[in-house]
Amino acid sequence: MSASMLLLPRYLLPVRPARELQVGMAVRVVDGNIDAVLPRAEALARFPEDRRVELDRHVLMPGLVNMHTHSPMALLRGYADDLALDTWLQDHIWPAEGRWVSEAFVRDGTRLAMAEMIRGGTTCFNEMYFFPREIARVAAEAGVRAVIGNPVIDVPTPWASGIDQCLALAESLSDMVEAEPLLDMTLAPHAPYTVDDAGLSRVAELSATRGWRVNMHVLEAGWEVARSQEMHGEDTLSRMDRLGLLSPDFVAVHMVHLTAADIELVAERGVHVVHCPESNLKLASGISPVAQLLAAGVNVAVGTDGAASNNDLDLLGELRTAALLAKGSSGDPAALDAWAAIEMATLSGARALGLGDRLGSIEPGKAADLAAMDLSAPETQPEHHVQSQVVYAANSRQFSHVWVAGKALMEEGELTTLDVDRVVARAAEWDERLAVRAA
Amino acid sequence: MSASMLLLPRYLLPVRPARELQVGMAVRVVDGNIDAVLPRAEALARFPEDRRVELDRHVLMPGLVNMHTHSPMALLRGYADDLALDTWLQDHIWPAEGRWVSEAFVRDGTRLAMAEMIRGGTTCFNEMYFFPREIARVAAEAGVRAVIGNPVIDVPTPWASGIDQCLALAESLSDMVEAEPLLDMTLAPHAPYTVDDAGLSRVAELSATRGWRVNMHVLEAGWEVARSQEMHGEDTLSRMDRLGLLSPDFVAVHMVHLTAADIELVAERGVHVVHCPESNLKLASGISPVAQLLAAGVNVAVGTDGAASNNDLDLLGELRTAALLAKGSSGDPAALDAWAAIEMATLSGARALGLGDRLGSIEPGKAADLAAMDLSAPETQPEHHVQSQVVYAANSRQFSHVWVAGKALMEEGELTTLDVDRVVARAAEWDERLAVRAA
Repeated sequence: MSASMLLLPRYLLPVRPARELQVGMAVRVVDGNIDAVLPRAEALARFPEDRRVELDRHVLMPGLVNMHTHSPMALLRGYADDLALDTWLQDHIWPAEGRWVSEAFVRDGTRLAMAEMIRGGTTCFNEMYFFPREIARVAAEAGVRAVIGNPVIDVPTPWASGIDQCLALAESLSDMVEAEPLLDMTLAPHAPYTVDDAGLSRVAELSATRGWRVNMHVLEAGWEVARSQEMHGEDTLSRMDRLGLLSPDFVAVHMVHLTAADIELVAERGVHVVHCPESNLKLASGISPVAQLLAAGVNVAVGTDGAASNNDLDLLGELRTAALLAKGSSGDPAALDAWAAIEMATLSGARALGLGDRLGSIEPGKAADLAAMDLSAPETQPEHHVQSQVVYAANSRQFSHVWVAGKALMEEGELTTLDVDRVVARAAEWDERLAVRAA
Repeated sequence: MSASMLLLPRYLLPVRPARELQVGMAVRVVDGNIDAVLPRAEALARFPEDRRVELDRHVLMPGLVNMHTHSPMALLRGYADDLALDTWLQDHIWPAEGRWVSEAFVRDGTRLAMAEMIRGGTTCFNEMYFFPREIARVAAEAGVRAVIGNPVIDVPTPWASGIDQCLALAESLSDMVEAEPLLDMTLAPHAPYTVDDAGLSRVAELSATRGWRVNMHVLEAGWEVARSQEMHGEDTLSRMDRLGLLSPDFVAVHMVHLTAADIELVAERGVHVVHCPESNLKLASGISPVAQLLAAGVNVAVGTDGAASNNDLDLLGELRTAALLAKGSSGDPAALDAWAAIEMATLSGARALGLGDRLGSIEPGKAADLAAMDLSAPETQPEHHVQSQVVYAANSRQFSHVWVAGKALMEEGELTTLDVDRVVARAAEWDERLAVRAA
């Protein structure tokens, strides 16, 4: 692979420095980073030795950042549907996990998830699942950028016996991700109702001393509101704030059941919110007040959640749902317009991860985490407004090329670092093992 | 083409006689109709001369019925977005239509729409747009089943000067569709607020005497509620009922703003409802109370609406949105489960068109309008519950084969009756003509 590469797209959606569509531009990539964004003719004249990638039917955009997923749960896709969150977890997902989750499950599931994510234009995912070192290992192997959550939960799991062991394992995850240029980590306490005050205090302290971000499910289901009052005599966010968790290093996932005061507090503390609209709809958890959060100045990113509750890892589809739902639920058809939606799935995710200076837009000095989409399919014709076609019309399978740190993970629709046939064969083996089809 | 064909899918989702997944079955097609559904081994033994189509990675299901679209508006995809319904119509869509809509526009737009619909597993669409004879002509040419709405609207359009001419043109459309086995027609008054009492009475009378169904936008936007009171001194559905429109021959599209009494009236009269969730969200029109309509026993089908307001014609995506939104908006995660969703997009559509005895399920005697989806993509692995994978996980580009009346319109992902390159080139010409990209 040449160290220097010129990407020559028909359209460029750089996200920054401006929300605008550019035509006739080239993006130069050197050693995994964006070296320059300049007119095509100038690029060809100045850099005649660079390898050229013609993208003459394409829009080039920053790779998508999937801000919430449980990758290994791809193996539980369609395992149990059309159920309430508590029934779904307690009667189906948790028993299956208790029986089956292992390093092998995590490895095969993460590869299945990454195959889908790369095909869908995702270059970075914010992960939360057991055996995080195994997830880190296969992500690094596949060349996907990932921020690996180290779970923290009071109950024993196949991975750890309780909080002490969770936190001990965080140290070994840290050693691992420090050696991997594409990886980073968070502490990932499961939820306010599964970690007690003592546990959350230790998380807050470790976050402060080690510089690890905290990534947590918060206020997903309506019953969390009453339960927090019953268990702790205070509301969820007041408790989290008292425990020192609410800060710009805190990534709060779901955030469906928020009061006006909650929104104000979240904005004041600089907490990042991850919106997972399809999972929240599917489990009937509710609809996050995204338009109000954005109006309050909160950084809102978007995630698919795991494939057991979505049931896809298609961030482009999630983005469309987010954009449609923000309008439908706020009554404002201008809410979360196409530009804002694209930013939510790229730069807002990067910012939530503390990587806003490295990822999320096509600007010199940033990492070359990029995705190209072929617009010539009937689905995105004609090309009146490309940002609209991307958000409201495009099918995620129109992504043709994906690069992470300048390395192609997909070219002309073919994955380069994952063997799809093998990944699918492994998934089929797990299907046999879990064997519920007849149900 | 052999007159007899055996389709040999890995999985069969017949919709009827039961909501169940069948394995190891064959579907025999003779002269465009389903002749038998029988075990694979028996089929191979009894019909050795039949042409065989191996679908060993696929689920075979009834073709999808898109119950509301304005096909030619595919050329206005992304033309104006993130706007309120009235601004969108009055300042953008209607002026563009007034300037550009012609037989050529309708022909090129309908072909673009049909290319997308066939690729997405749709075998039948319920249409509403100007120049319906031209739409009928190109649909017949492409071999797609269609029910063509003859618009009825008080204002002059590029197609007709007013109601008299609309109704005169309905007669010529009728002559045309009677000669085409795949076509049928409806009268399509635009909306309660664009056709006066006299016009709607004539529609009701013609519907009764000629046996034409009526297909109409009803209660899409919230302002329709007050406007009906102002203009007519009564609510919309009472007025429609007084004018004799509410019957099992009436297809009411959108139906977002319904009272409990409205739902009761609709159920009593046997009116069919077409749910267009993505268009309703995008224009911030609201969310149709689908779970309540279904609970009242109303037949609810699903449509994409036109590509100017959706912005795709992906009925599978629409179905997913419908299933997710029914749960999220009703608070019941079991609302509109995967089986009900599949039925909504197939048999319920057929019933709304009065074609429930001919379409919408895979049963002997029905037309062979079928779609096969390749499940081997990572996106639908593993195959725990195929109905869940179809509704909640599958990408519409996984449809590999589509048949209408036994004729293949798509094989292995390639269209057989439409030249996609030519269709896309025509769309690009319209893009130049409408030229708004810089805006």
